[in-house]
Amino acid sequence: MDSSQFREAAHGAIDEIIQYYDTVAERPVLPNVSPGYLRPLLPEGPPEDGEPWSAIQGDIDRLIMPGLTHWQSPKFMAFFPCNSSYPGMLGELYSGAFNAAAFNWICSPAVTELETVVMDWIAKLLALPDCFQSAGEGGGIIQGTASEVVLTALVAARERLIRRRLGDMPEGEERMDRAADLRGKMVALGSEHAHSSTQKAAVIAGTRFRTVPAPRSTNLSVTGKELRKTIEELKERGLEPFYFTATIGSTGTCAIDDLEGIVEVAKNYPDIWIHVDAAYAGSALLCPEYQHLCPPIAHFDSFNFNLHKWLLVNFDCSAFFTKRRKDLIDTYSITPFYLRNQFTESGLVTDYRDWQIPLGRRFRSLKVWLVLRTYGVNGLRKFIRGHVKLGEYFNGLLNSRKDLFSVVTPAAFGLTTFQINPPKPAKPSSPATTKDPAHEAYTGDFTNDAEAQYREDANRLTKEAYEKVNAGGEFFLTSTVVCGVYVIRVVSAVERAEEKYLKKVFDVLVETAEEVVKGKA
Amino acid sequence: MDSSQFREAAHGAIDEIIQYYDTVAERPVLPNVSPGYLRPLLPEGPPEDGEPWSAIQGDIDRLIMPGLTHWQSPKFMAFFPCNSSYPGMLGELYSGAFNAAAFNWICSPAVTELETVVMDWIAKLLALPDCFQSAGEGGGIIQGTASEVVLTALVAARERLIRRRLGDMPEGEERMDRAADLRGKMVALGSEHAHSSTQKAAVIAGTRFRTVPAPRSTNLSVTGKELRKTIEELKERGLEPFYFTATIGSTGTCAIDDLEGIVEVAKNYPDIWIHVDAAYAGSALLCPEYQHLCPPIAHFDSFNFNLHKWLLVNFDCSAFFTKRRKDLIDTYSITPFYLRNQFTESGLVTDYRDWQIPLGRRFRSLKVWLVLRTYGVNGLRKFIRGHVKLGEYFNGLLNSRKDLFSVVTPAAFGLTTFQINPPKPAKPSSPATTKDPAHEAYTGDFTNDAEAQYREDANRLTKEAYEKVNAGGEFFLTSTVVCGVYVIRVVSAVERAEEKYLKKVFDVLVETAEEVVKGKA
Repeated sequence: MDSSQFREAAHGAIDEIIQYYDTVAERPVLPNVSPGYLRPLLPEGPPEDGEPWSAIQGDIDRLIMPGLTHWQSPKFMAFFPCNSSYPGMLGELYSGAFNAAAFNWICSPAVTELETVVMDWIAKLLALPDCFQSAGEGGGIIQGTASEVVLTALVAARERLIRRRLGDMPEGEERMDRAADLRGKMVALGSEHAHSSTQKAAVIAGTRFRTVPAPRSTNLSVTGKELRKTIEELKERGLEPFYFTATIGSTGTCAIDDLEGIVEVAKNYPDIWIHVDAAYAGSALLCPEYQHLCPPIAHFDSFNFNLHKWLLVNFDCSAFFTKRRKDLIDTYSITPFYLRNQFTESGLVTDYRDWQIPLGRRFRSLKVWLVLRTYGVNGLRKFIRGHVKLGEYFNGLLNSRKDLFSVVTPAAFGLTTFQINPPKPAKPSSPATTKDPAHEAYTGDFTNDAEAQYREDANRLTKEAYEKVNAGGEFFLTSTVVCGVYVIRVVSAVERAEEKYLKKVFDVLVETAEEVVKGKA
Repeated sequence: MDSSQFREAAHGAIDEIIQYYDTVAERPVLPNVSPGYLRPLLPEGPPEDGEPWSAIQGDIDRLIMPGLTHWQSPKFMAFFPCNSSYPGMLGELYSGAFNAAAFNWICSPAVTELETVVMDWIAKLLALPDCFQSAGEGGGIIQGTASEVVLTALVAARERLIRRRLGDMPEGEERMDRAADLRGKMVALGSEHAHSSTQKAAVIAGTRFRTVPAPRSTNLSVTGKELRKTIEELKERGLEPFYFTATIGSTGTCAIDDLEGIVEVAKNYPDIWIHVDAAYAGSALLCPEYQHLCPPIAHFDSFNFNLHKWLLVNFDCSAFFTKRRKDLIDTYSITPFYLRNQFTESGLVTDYRDWQIPLGRRFRSLKVWLVLRTYGVNGLRKFIRGHVKLGEYFNGLLNSRKDLFSVVTPAAFGLTTFQINPPKPAKPSSPATTKDPAHEAYTGDFTNDAEAQYREDANRLTKEAYEKVNAGGEFFLTSTVVCGVYVIRVVSAVERAEEKYLKKVFDVLVETAEEVVKGKA
């Protein structure tokens, strides 16, 4: 493909992308294909000789498009969003053109330097404590995903503890044996509602993993008290808690752990690395009304959030801030001869490869820079606040039909979770009760058996309604189970989100709920 | 940025990229900037309000371009190449537009299905044994980098051994204790010339690491005999070797481990996971003349190569093939409620998140598909063979000046390593010797002292010449140390590579070598 063929092909691709974005709201959000749909449509192998672009481009529309789930559709209300934007795409386009495996400074100085600058910008925008700025001992790095970040932090925590415990003990067999014994006792911790990435990171790091309870009575938050209790129990058994993921915005319900309470635990246990995972909700810290969450983070070791979720930067882009970059470098730095160079050795440059698991690095800061400049701080705040409001709007809709729906966790960062109410049981003393009809509200009126039955019915009906809505293909929602309660999650935070789509999904939910409740009754 | 602004911006970006590629050969390959160049040129933070694209685009040329190392320049002969291509860029462009965190099938079926198909295509093209095809128990996945792949394989190896050793032992404290004891004894192995990623993966996995000798007498290859000796030594000491990285094309010199010899070791030690890292050289397996390397791989557990190095697919794109995907899934599968869905539970779909460390996934197979179709199999073979020939051409140039240069490892997959010869010592009995003037050839003629001095001089002069060439900024080379010998590496395998650039760098090397030798004499 020569330059002029590329120009023509790229112009065609851009028109196709624009057409896709302009019509994405009209498409069913879920594809109508069965597992294995694609293979029969493709040849046995690539062609012997190259094909012209004209023969290729049509296949994207014909073969790929029908198999896509449309994450940019305003009818996508599942998981968390994965927002794309035009400036983000332009950033990826340039990054692909400046293609490099930029593992150290000299491999492309702009890749390292722009990253350091935009990470500092972001730390400031989010009102993260100053210790996370590169001017001191900390700094930010862009990694791929929150899972990668959590693993990076967890392994650094494990090795930091070994360095602290074994101190000046000389390298050698004995030290390796002692380190192995220590690793064998180590326990990583996370809320029972923390993302599965903490558990997976513990598997990879070869440590134990233990959840910290976060019941509904504390709004699904890990409290300092509960964390301390778990730590003490483990220590009594001769185990060594070394890492805890605190969450701002849990995956299930956007719960926030009790950061202030956890600060007190951090002070008592300085060898436990506390990482704050704000993968989705972290973007809201751009808005001053959320920044009261930030001061406690100064007492923790690291923080991350995904710009590829809510901040319009194409996937992947997870910002990871650490208070002491040395903790990462001491773990990850391995410098074989072929990676040595005068710049690295001068100490004047940052070699981000020593802050991460892979060696090579993409030029991800470019898309961040372009998005920040195109939207501006005010544009991004407006974007976030719009989604927060949409969450409240949807929560209000649910509350307008308390006969059908019980909100389980109210709108937080745009996410609401709820259940379908089963038909009212015969037993309640007053059927015309003015109490909130959510299952919890009924507790006092039920025998234990009736209550259990009611809860089971609520779970089953909610699951049934959830599956019906997704099977329709127009909207894509997800469900989860929170402390035994099966809930539907609705989060509408894509760029094209609007009230009218939430009204529409609400209407679909009403109709479906009435149907399943009628079926039950 | 609305659709029409995006169209205009994208057209401008494409023109700029074309202009960049058309002129990349004329630019000095290394940027002329000092550490910290960028920060003073940028404001303290992003703008309050969004800026128009017209105000942004110029800054890419003004601020970023001067800080780039030009990996697509034919004067880039350092490390290994990181080839970009126009169809690869188009793939990234579409992938950015279809933006999704496609962690399971329903998140975007096309992302999973195209990946399975193109990975099968590639396994066949590379003549990998059938066991690596998805139709059986194996299959391929695209990950980011070889480092990520090696870590994925190494941790799966560690956990597989634990499952095999602990068998049916019930889950619980006792099993955890036993597993921890086992992990504490485990040793990962790699050639002394293996890429640092194996050592780094062992750090992350919390296991020991030990190199296997691969001296010049065996062409820098790990032999079966040496591997067996290392394993037996470790077992005698009560340690547990569990993983070995075999290399096709080592980073320093493109050495190949003795795969056939290693097969015999694999048969005797079936609990040791053998991974074949062919990060750079693996692309050559597209050509039948290299496929004699493939049959032994059937006896190993996994294989990877980076399409982003030599195969024209933009960074990042590392293809990882495994013989038993169950080994990965048994280690990495964690399914919290919010990731459950009927498709996953039906068992009809592949959930690649269980084959890897991160959760989310980019749509990388799209760029692979577009590159394979645009070049065709013959086009890609021609591309690879062209670089192999260029390597031989450069090796020939070095041989034409045996007075100045000693080839240390001859051209392999386009990579040649060599030294500058110090002035001839006074001592040799016959100064007009017809022997190869490489330091090794002199051995018999020297006293031990003179030989040591000669070798030291050769290392010093080579380093001096290397630093002078890179300081010139026109060409970018790397150096390394192989078994105590300091060598310059030249590998010219970017898309725009041509004989004339190798001739030019050779002329520069001749001039520089003469200068440093004269300085010494």
